Amino acid sequence: MNAATPFQDWMIAAQARTEAALAAALPSALVLPHRLHDAMRYASLAGGKRVRPLLVFAAGEISAAPVAALEVAAVAVELIHSYSLVHDDLPAMDDDTLRRGRPTCHVEYDEATALLTGDALQTLAFEHLATLPLTPEVALKLIALLAHASGSRGMAGGQAIDLAAVGQKTLAPPELELMHAMKTGALIRAAVLMGAGCGTGLAAAETELLDRFAKRAGLLFQVVDDILDCTASTATLGKTAGKDTAAEKPTYVSLLGLEAARAHADELRTEALTALSAFGARAQRLEELAQFICDRRF
Amino acid sequence: MNAATPFQDWMIAAQARTEAALAAALPSALVLPHRLHDAMRYASLAGGKRVRPLLVFAAGEISAAPVAALEVAAVAVELIHSYSLVHDDLPAMDDDTLRRGRPTCHVEYDEATALLTGDALQTLAFEHLATLPLTPEVALKLIALLAHASGSRGMAGGQAIDLAAVGQKTLAPPELELMHAMKTGALIRAAVLMGAGCGTGLAAAETELLDRFAKRAGLLFQVVDDILDCTASTATLGKTAGKDTAAEKPTYVSLLGLEAARAHADELRTEALTALSAFGARAQRLEELAQFICDRRF
Repeated sequence: MNAATPFQDWMIAAQARTEAALAAALPSALVLPHRLHDAMRYASLAGGKRVRPLLVFAAGEISAAPVAALEVAAVAVELIHSYSLVHDDLPAMDDDTLRRGRPTCHVEYDEATALLTGDALQTLAFEHLATLPLTPEVALKLIALLAHASGSRGMAGGQAIDLAAVGQKTLAPPELELMHAMKTGALIRAAVLMGAGCGTGLAAAETELLDRFAKRAGLLFQVVDDILDCTASTATLGKTAGKDTAAEKPTYVSLLGLEAARAHADELRTEALTALSAFGARAQRLEELAQFICDRRF
Repeated sequence: MNAATPFQDWMIAAQARTEAALAAALPSALVLPHRLHDAMRYASLAGGKRVRPLLVFAAGEISAAPVAALEVAAVAVELIHSYSLVHDDLPAMDDDTLRRGRPTCHVEYDEATALLTGDALQTLAFEHLATLPLTPEVALKLIALLAHASGSRGMAGGQAIDLAAVGQKTLAPPELELMHAMKTGALIRAAVLMGAGCGTGLAAAETELLDRFAKRAGLLFQVVDDILDCTASTATLGKTAGKDTAAEKPTYVSLLGLEAARAHADELRTEALTALSAFGARAQRLEELAQFICDRRF
């Protein structure tokens, strides 16, 4: 076994910090209503890669943000992500039974509980973000960022477009890109901007470069996801593999073919890394994270 | 036809203001994704009594709050209420087909769209509240109030307890009260505190009295709702009458009987009005509103 790299050490520490902060932010299952709180913890504390929290922490290094604030922002973003997975897996949506290697929330509990679990996880994200240990101005700015990224003009809107696209394998690449920019890209972009927003203010040109990175990273994540959906196994992914193909959903692979999708991922990675070059050593973790997203096998 | 009272004039004006502010806050159906935005508007602009916005505006008179801020707070509370109705009506929950005299959202659109509509209405509530035209401190305080009131320790938690209570007509009155205090009371209380919070700060004793009023008004609203569920017709209510009885849900009427439930409503109204007496003329609209909630026939 190889020794861990400094990046791997950093990642494991940030994931552990996220896990502990999430566990502390979620109400105890001993608090009424027990079953709902139990389901909220089940859906949120199941591990996962914690890519969005990692982006918050890595982006925070660009602006020397305090870790205590980054923890709050990371938890809020991850709660939104968890809520979206619980609702996405419901029978009315993707009707999936496996998530992070375990039964999905509505399978483990029941549909009504899963619906309320997603609802309450979303609410908790904003309740928690309102406790950000920075000025009220910054807290409010982060709340606006997160809400815009996850609402009908962001994540939820992307899911609506995705639903409408089932059976339309012929969606044009620009439309596929818009859908993904909203469905997964918006929250990934928000994670980066929220992390950087917890520290000292960036110059306008720096914010623009970071935003360019964030948009490319969001698309990169989705292209890699599409590639893994058709090349990795269900056991490796911890969720049902091949389901986009089965559902006749347009993916980068179905539109471009596997090799062209891989080439597109390489191109996005290069653009993402180029946008970070002006930040020098402050952007090291973000660069490594973009590389990690590109190289991931699960 | 009798001439309108000043209270009726005030109420009609506040409802019209709410309607216009909601229509402006909701994304146009011309914006992508069209169907989701159309469904969000369908679910939110269907009229209704707008009790929570009325409470925001009436409570704002206690602290001389600016109308522009009250409008934002009123819209945020009503968006949370609308989201909860859309999700409540879903087949996995109450499985209802009629709301405000029209087909429910999942009947008019589809289940997946209704799920995303509720999700996006909740997000929009917080996104909109972050635009409150007051100091960031006040905006943040209102966001925390609304989130706490609508999450797992408030409205969503009350719904979870309600679900678990189906078939348990023998629930003890204190448990029924806790469930209602969370399911409907928390958001009504938040509406009152948010309205007052938009104006000049109240003394601690005043806040305590207002909170006492808000808690009693929340329970009062629910007791009257239970009475109407078994005495009014579906046509009058604009939603399915008698459904709590049909679902064997415990209600104040099933636990106390109709006459005792009416007596309990009278008692709550008296307590609510007593709590307001220290405010003098500033509380006139709130008093009239409590009376209106008690006398309503739909």
